[in-house]
Amino acid sequence: MSRVFNFSAGPAALPEPVLDRIRNDIPDWQGSGMSVMEVSHRSKPFIAVAEKAEADLRKLLGISSDYSVLFLQGGATLQFAMTALNLAGPGDTADYVQTGSWSKKALKEAALHCKVNVAASSEDSGHCHIPPEDEWRRTKDAAYLHYTPNETIGGVEFHFVPNAGDTPLVADMSSTILSRPVDVSKFGLIYAGAQKNIGPAGITVVIVRNDLLERARPGLPTLLTYKAFAESGSMTNTPPTFAWYAAGLVFDYLLEQGGLESVAAVNERKAKKLYAAIDASGFYTNPVAVDARSWMNVPFILADSGLDGEFLAQADAAGLTNLKGHRSVGGMRASIYNAVSEAAVDALIQFMQDFEKSQS
Amino acid sequence: MSRVFNFSAGPAALPEPVLDRIRNDIPDWQGSGMSVMEVSHRSKPFIAVAEKAEADLRKLLGISSDYSVLFLQGGATLQFAMTALNLAGPGDTADYVQTGSWSKKALKEAALHCKVNVAASSEDSGHCHIPPEDEWRRTKDAAYLHYTPNETIGGVEFHFVPNAGDTPLVADMSSTILSRPVDVSKFGLIYAGAQKNIGPAGITVVIVRNDLLERARPGLPTLLTYKAFAESGSMTNTPPTFAWYAAGLVFDYLLEQGGLESVAAVNERKAKKLYAAIDASGFYTNPVAVDARSWMNVPFILADSGLDGEFLAQADAAGLTNLKGHRSVGGMRASIYNAVSEAAVDALIQFMQDFEKSQS
Repeated sequence: MSRVFNFSAGPAALPEPVLDRIRNDIPDWQGSGMSVMEVSHRSKPFIAVAEKAEADLRKLLGISSDYSVLFLQGGATLQFAMTALNLAGPGDTADYVQTGSWSKKALKEAALHCKVNVAASSEDSGHCHIPPEDEWRRTKDAAYLHYTPNETIGGVEFHFVPNAGDTPLVADMSSTILSRPVDVSKFGLIYAGAQKNIGPAGITVVIVRNDLLERARPGLPTLLTYKAFAESGSMTNTPPTFAWYAAGLVFDYLLEQGGLESVAAVNERKAKKLYAAIDASGFYTNPVAVDARSWMNVPFILADSGLDGEFLAQADAAGLTNLKGHRSVGGMRASIYNAVSEAAVDALIQFMQDFEKSQS
Repeated sequence: MSRVFNFSAGPAALPEPVLDRIRNDIPDWQGSGMSVMEVSHRSKPFIAVAEKAEADLRKLLGISSDYSVLFLQGGATLQFAMTALNLAGPGDTADYVQTGSWSKKALKEAALHCKVNVAASSEDSGHCHIPPEDEWRRTKDAAYLHYTPNETIGGVEFHFVPNAGDTPLVADMSSTILSRPVDVSKFGLIYAGAQKNIGPAGITVVIVRNDLLERARPGLPTLLTYKAFAESGSMTNTPPTFAWYAAGLVFDYLLEQGGLESVAAVNERKAKKLYAAIDASGFYTNPVAVDARSWMNVPFILADSGLDGEFLAQADAAGLTNLKGHRSVGGMRASIYNAVSEAAVDALIQFMQDFEKSQS
């Protein structure tokens, strides 16, 4: 089969030039007679890969030297614990904004390690909007303020950065990082699992303001301490070298595309045309408040859920895969991350319109 | 350049048929129109990969249903903490046998989380032997007894399994797992980072007796709790899918080779001929007690360390790479894991003999 249009929520599509490069580098990488998977993380050629990946990510996001960029394991879920363990003492309170499944999981895990205040929640609308910032009930002297800029399951995205004042702002950017420029200087800490816009699953990026490295509580496992990674260039122990290398290829590819301004323009266009097609139909519905609709994850339901199976089968046959919505919300979801082309979105829209017609 | 003979200590050489398969599966895996890196870990095709990998590993090592097999992140270093946090209470004592750098690191990390008793140490011989088992000063009612069956840096290997009695025996098998058959039923817990005999860096195998899953102390981060992984089929969150798939290819390949009896016969032959060549020379020396010499990591020094640079340069030019010893011990080290062929060892021996002659 040739390549399909892959709308997977994650692990998600990778850019084809990146896949080509990975393929061509096996089994003889850089004329070394070895693949990149078979060399020491402490070898000069691999250290060059690691350093270029960090430098390119800093360039893409405009990250200043006030921040450390770390490459860890464990995914965003381990960050749910590490943020609390590194930024809050056991008796401190951290504020959380709950806008969907992932922010809820984050605060539940953090509550194992510190006090958690739900400063705002959109649970009453089924997590379909963002509570207005002026209604958030924040804690004075909170250890940090955590939010989830994009909820992968609900398809709810913040199109603004909250004003946290002097409180460190912490963001789970797993499903939105690199989709558009972001002013990193507004954040205390940003984390993101790789498997949406960064690269293959198995590596996690953390961007942390250097002064916050000193807050870690004593006695943590070494590998749960940001400072250990910051001091070792993320080589406290053997890192996931292949995933790091692949992420570096993605960063390089995004710079070649013109950086995040260019990437954002395409992403905005993709999202707008898909939402427009949904809204113009009498058949598909997206439940999210218009000002909170995600550029990356577009959930939609059919007028008749009895047609879901038929829709998915026909889509699959047409080379449009992984459109099934998350089991917790049902319906469909098109994840249209950076590596999902505008052509893929056009093909999806055409298919949706054809399917709607075939049912009338 | 064609493929070289790669003696890297880790990340280490992978079997060529596995690399070929990885290459051929990009970008269209199983006719799906996607690579394996681009599919959900919860998709049927990936779950089949994950389950086959576990089943094959169980077959290779003869693992009974009394044990859970887990696929985690964080490497052996995270296991240094997780073993203590999951098997011992804060006031409990764990016994450690120190036979080199890695067992020393393991006990240092564990000491953050429980009491540690060094039951035996070979530090007085520069970690070049294994303290006789009848001299170990073990703690009555220790939470567990930890040892490192193969020390990657020192090249010291246990050619027996300690008798721990009723105390759970815990082993860091990172650099020896799958090199030979092992009676898993003698162990409470076995862990191993992948990047020697299992697959690419970024995944860690844990084999744990099910009754021990209940010992975890309360309030641990979810991703530091073995039980969470055991209950979710190691899909508590997105696992490192590519590394898991690649490990599965290695397991499949080892079964095709006839399983671990066949693998062990080759490994023993490789090691014996290399040590014989070292001992027969008047030029190379291995410092390890004969009954504790590793099948996997063979350190050796030259009669004149002033020749180290020349030896390495000539070896490299001859296509024999990554022979430099660990910085803490100097000299040379040939890591001859499963994927390093007998032909590679033969070529190394020939080169060593030629080099010795050229210096006389």
